[in-house]
Amino acid sequence: MPLFVVGSVALDSVHTPRDAREDVLGGSAVYFSYAASFFTSVRLVGVVGEDWPHEHTQFLQSRRIDTSGLQVVPGGKTFRWRGKYATNMNDRQTLEVHLNVLGDFDPVLPDEYKRCPYVFLANGSPRAQMKVLEQVTGPRLVVADTMDLWIRESHDELLQLFRRIDGLVMNDSEAKLLTEDENLVRAGHRIRELGPKFVVIKKGEHGAMFFSQYETYVLPAFPTERVVDPTGAGDSFAGGMMGYLSEIDSFEPGALKKAMAYGILVASFNVEDFSLERMKEISREDLEFRLQQYQRMLRF
Amino acid sequence: MPLFVVGSVALDSVHTPRDAREDVLGGSAVYFSYAASFFTSVRLVGVVGEDWPHEHTQFLQSRRIDTSGLQVVPGGKTFRWRGKYATNMNDRQTLEVHLNVLGDFDPVLPDEYKRCPYVFLANGSPRAQMKVLEQVTGPRLVVADTMDLWIRESHDELLQLFRRIDGLVMNDSEAKLLTEDENLVRAGHRIRELGPKFVVIKKGEHGAMFFSQYETYVLPAFPTERVVDPTGAGDSFAGGMMGYLSEIDSFEPGALKKAMAYGILVASFNVEDFSLERMKEISREDLEFRLQQYQRMLRF
Repeated sequence: MPLFVVGSVALDSVHTPRDAREDVLGGSAVYFSYAASFFTSVRLVGVVGEDWPHEHTQFLQSRRIDTSGLQVVPGGKTFRWRGKYATNMNDRQTLEVHLNVLGDFDPVLPDEYKRCPYVFLANGSPRAQMKVLEQVTGPRLVVADTMDLWIRESHDELLQLFRRIDGLVMNDSEAKLLTEDENLVRAGHRIRELGPKFVVIKKGEHGAMFFSQYETYVLPAFPTERVVDPTGAGDSFAGGMMGYLSEIDSFEPGALKKAMAYGILVASFNVEDFSLERMKEISREDLEFRLQQYQRMLRF
Repeated sequence: MPLFVVGSVALDSVHTPRDAREDVLGGSAVYFSYAASFFTSVRLVGVVGEDWPHEHTQFLQSRRIDTSGLQVVPGGKTFRWRGKYATNMNDRQTLEVHLNVLGDFDPVLPDEYKRCPYVFLANGSPRAQMKVLEQVTGPRLVVADTMDLWIRESHDELLQLFRRIDGLVMNDSEAKLLTEDENLVRAGHRIRELGPKFVVIKKGEHGAMFFSQYETYVLPAFPTERVVDPTGAGDSFAGGMMGYLSEIDSFEPGALKKAMAYGILVASFNVEDFSLERMKEISREDLEFRLQQYQRMLRF
């Protein structure tokens, strides 16, 4: 089944303790799309400026990613983010954000996108996420991401959104912020009670937790010593998860757990290099091999 | 097989954001022994003062814990620790430490302890741990714990100890401190290269990691919303782990992984109340039930 994503398309500048990259391909919708493209065809909605290198579009198209929803604003500049990671490769500092064309982005879905059964609303203002949702007809599964900014500044709109989505994906720190509860098990269930049928809390190097009315579980991250650039890990996680659900066209409990595992594994590859470099090198077979290792790791 | 532990026996005063307890039963050897007593008979070596309530000794004896190695120092006072947990129930501050009789503790093993095949050296100075080790004859498995104080102040002795033990258990923050590496996968293997055949890194609410020459894996903590008092979680973990290994008298890879799981589960019960209160309420059957839940959680 095809999968639709709306989110940011960016040129990132990333500083890590050992290395740096300037203006590399990034953005939530890009990481998500590429991660999902291991499993299914993806329809991307986003916006870029005239400075956007056309090779990036061609690169995405080479991966079953439909970019007919990628608006190019004449005379505009692409969204840029510059960030710096601490030595623990977990904490990061945003050095610069230039919203540019993303600031006025009014996502309009191409007609053929509107009936897409699987929908992911990557991090964006709850108002924009809702506007996209209103253009979609009869989706089977709608999952959204959010961030601390919207929890702080658009709390009411966020709560409205929660009542319209099936699943929510967010970071541990955001879950704590939203619920004012430091216990993630309680926090996850409290967020679920705000509307989503299931909630996924991403814990970075510690894996991810899942909450539904019937289930609570946690899966660890895949242990890797090669952490070069964590940018896009959360979006790759979501892309792997949603990609698998779209592929098998199911979101029953067993499918959701395996989807979480795929999300964790795609993210574990993604952090092994800058931008999408590592994901570019791997195939579905590499994911399947790591899945076997992961399942063996969790068996005793 | 019997299991021998040397470590602290304490009266703890614990402050959490919601509640507090004064002078309750605690200490690494106590938490360890009780946790291990679900699986095997335990021989405890420690020291207390004249103020030590005899009921505590009787309580330990009621659980297959041999206390003939518990020295009572006439006129002495028992080791006391007072700590306060932050709202995240993870960070804690030590408010008071009175070493008392623990300061001059010179562990002497009763003869019947010396041939104990399974040995756990709970946190203590590497010099004291080594002195105990020298009294033991032909152990099958020696595992030690340590802490930041010894990493900072007794680095050389600690490295000597590492070359004498089979396994090492330590916290994530201590592993990072020892290796000056923030990546726990690298840190774990670097510590293993210092001597121990295997290293276990405890990550608190995020579970535990295992490192041997052949294996690297991580198991998550059991998700619980009832975190009342985390004191003794690490020692209960070690007790559950070593208790199971002693019970089945094996430390092949499969046994070690299942032992890690039991450690995680005993610890998950331990945090559900102050002191040993929650462990007192449960039976081996409760552990087995939670093990089944845990195995189901990790299966997909």
